[in-house]
Amino acid sequence: MYLLSQLQDLVNKQIAESDFNFSASELYDPVKYIMSLGGKRLRPNLLLMSCDLFKGPILDALPVAVGIELFHNFTLMHDDIMDKAPIRRGKPTVHAKWGESSAILSGDAMLIEAYKLISTVDMAALRDVLKVFNETAISVCEGQQADMRFEESNHVTINDYLDMIRLKTAILIAGSLKIGAIIANATPENADLIYSFGENLGISFQLQDDILDIYGNPEKFGKRVGGDIISNKKTFLRLKAMELAEGLDLEELMYWSEYKGDDQDAKVKEVIALYNRLGIREIAEKEMSKFAELALLDLREIKADEERKDVLTSFADSLLIREA
Amino acid sequence: MYLLSQLQDLVNKQIAESDFNFSASELYDPVKYIMSLGGKRLRPNLLLMSCDLFKGPILDALPVAVGIELFHNFTLMHDDIMDKAPIRRGKPTVHAKWGESSAILSGDAMLIEAYKLISTVDMAALRDVLKVFNETAISVCEGQQADMRFEESNHVTINDYLDMIRLKTAILIAGSLKIGAIIANATPENADLIYSFGENLGISFQLQDDILDIYGNPEKFGKRVGGDIISNKKTFLRLKAMELAEGLDLEELMYWSEYKGDDQDAKVKEVIALYNRLGIREIAEKEMSKFAELALLDLREIKADEERKDVLTSFADSLLIREA
Repeated sequence: MYLLSQLQDLVNKQIAESDFNFSASELYDPVKYIMSLGGKRLRPNLLLMSCDLFKGPILDALPVAVGIELFHNFTLMHDDIMDKAPIRRGKPTVHAKWGESSAILSGDAMLIEAYKLISTVDMAALRDVLKVFNETAISVCEGQQADMRFEESNHVTINDYLDMIRLKTAILIAGSLKIGAIIANATPENADLIYSFGENLGISFQLQDDILDIYGNPEKFGKRVGGDIISNKKTFLRLKAMELAEGLDLEELMYWSEYKGDDQDAKVKEVIALYNRLGIREIAEKEMSKFAELALLDLREIKADEERKDVLTSFADSLLIREA
Repeated sequence: MYLLSQLQDLVNKQIAESDFNFSASELYDPVKYIMSLGGKRLRPNLLLMSCDLFKGPILDALPVAVGIELFHNFTLMHDDIMDKAPIRRGKPTVHAKWGESSAILSGDAMLIEAYKLISTVDMAALRDVLKVFNETAISVCEGQQADMRFEESNHVTINDYLDMIRLKTAILIAGSLKIGAIIANATPENADLIYSFGENLGISFQLQDDILDIYGNPEKFGKRVGGDIISNKKTFLRLKAMELAEGLDLEELMYWSEYKGDDQDAKVKEVIALYNRLGIREIAEKEMSKFAELALLDLREIKADEERKDVLTSFADSLLIREA
């Protein structure tokens, strides 16, 4: 059995040592760049933890785990173009640094390289792993499509939003865990349970992200507080506020949504005050806890060593208390 | 054994009947659109012909063939963004019609759908097919990268150019043929020969395209004559002219390269006159024939029924006399 820190070291070492092909530097420099920006390596770590939970071959799963991280970073590279985002993890985005064409093409190459790594999996698992990965990858595209559509729409419901974050974020976490289970030759029941665990964990994790954007400690969180408010992003909190606000509150919310002035700090401050009046933080935290509890229920049902399950339980706990 | 026309019908029918997933129409409408624009379906037809040459299961190969055509159209969708091309096959390009973000994201979904179809192949062939496809797909990206790099460079040699069209065009044709052979359980020697046949055929085919752009019958070719001259595209013909032109000829070539005036017809006319003085057409046709002959030599070495080989031989012949 591996400690979480050992799995994390394996992932980071494998990523650092991958040269991602040196044959055409214009194509691969952006790949190396985005992979070097760091991040929590959440998805590969979860894949390996799931594989270890079911006593699978960690070193066989490692290239697949890196493939999943490549895929995740491919989606970030392309999403950043679509969102016209200039900064990612405190550094210029790939399209800001190399231009859009490079970011499109290097992203395409990353997706193919991800498939290359995923295809290294043992023959016995290959077809099932590909099936889960293909479905997962398509979901992420559908989620991004929904996310873009929401920007233009005034009729987004809380359910639409939960469905979007499920597609865009939760299913990749779920799929990573399931792939780890398949490599470990887990029973179908266990593989489905760990998938469901990941889906619920992923939704909970994204809801936490929405909450932290507004209520997080900016030093720990590493982002400007209220970015979602400034950009009128249709997060759970905003959609819930739209649902609950009435009369003057609703007018104020609409006023700040259309506000084009320079005092964005005032916008953030007043919208937060409004959220506080409506109890939005508590509602969002309750929703987040609901999914976190569903995730832990899934985990409890999995038939595996309790000691190994504890690793995942504490990891899930640690993920959901990033703020303190 | 299948007739070419039967294989073509199979491909066209399978493409027409594929709904390419209806779950998120914004994501899939561009896919259906680009797939409906037609084209020769060269790659899937070659894949099936190769499979039939080695007496393989055509109906099992059919979804893989459509996967290859999806992949090819994905590259067109993304290339059109990078090239800022407004028109493809006489219709607006996807990014012109739906915007860049949609063209990026629908292209990504197409690449994943291509992998889905390719992953349907029989277990015995799955790993080998994926290996060939992964390498092929990466080559196409590297070729596109080289093509974009050439636009900015003044030091492109004929060899650089041949290498670029090999990566961007020929290897996908070669890979399609090899995948058909693998599905048919051909010997490794035969699979390598059909790959080499495709590589040489593909280079020959692209050289013909360069020639037809300037010397083709515009009614048969369906494009404006001299488009490559107007855009100063570094094709085989232009690079050869740069290599051979001296004195006043070279000055004239440079003059027209830098020409920003309105009389593009004069530019086309004068550059063609210059090419004629330098014998560029003959040199290009000789180079094209060289690769066509290499392709036919490969085909001759393949150990298979002569009758079945004839289908491929006549198809190769028909490809290389589109103009008449």
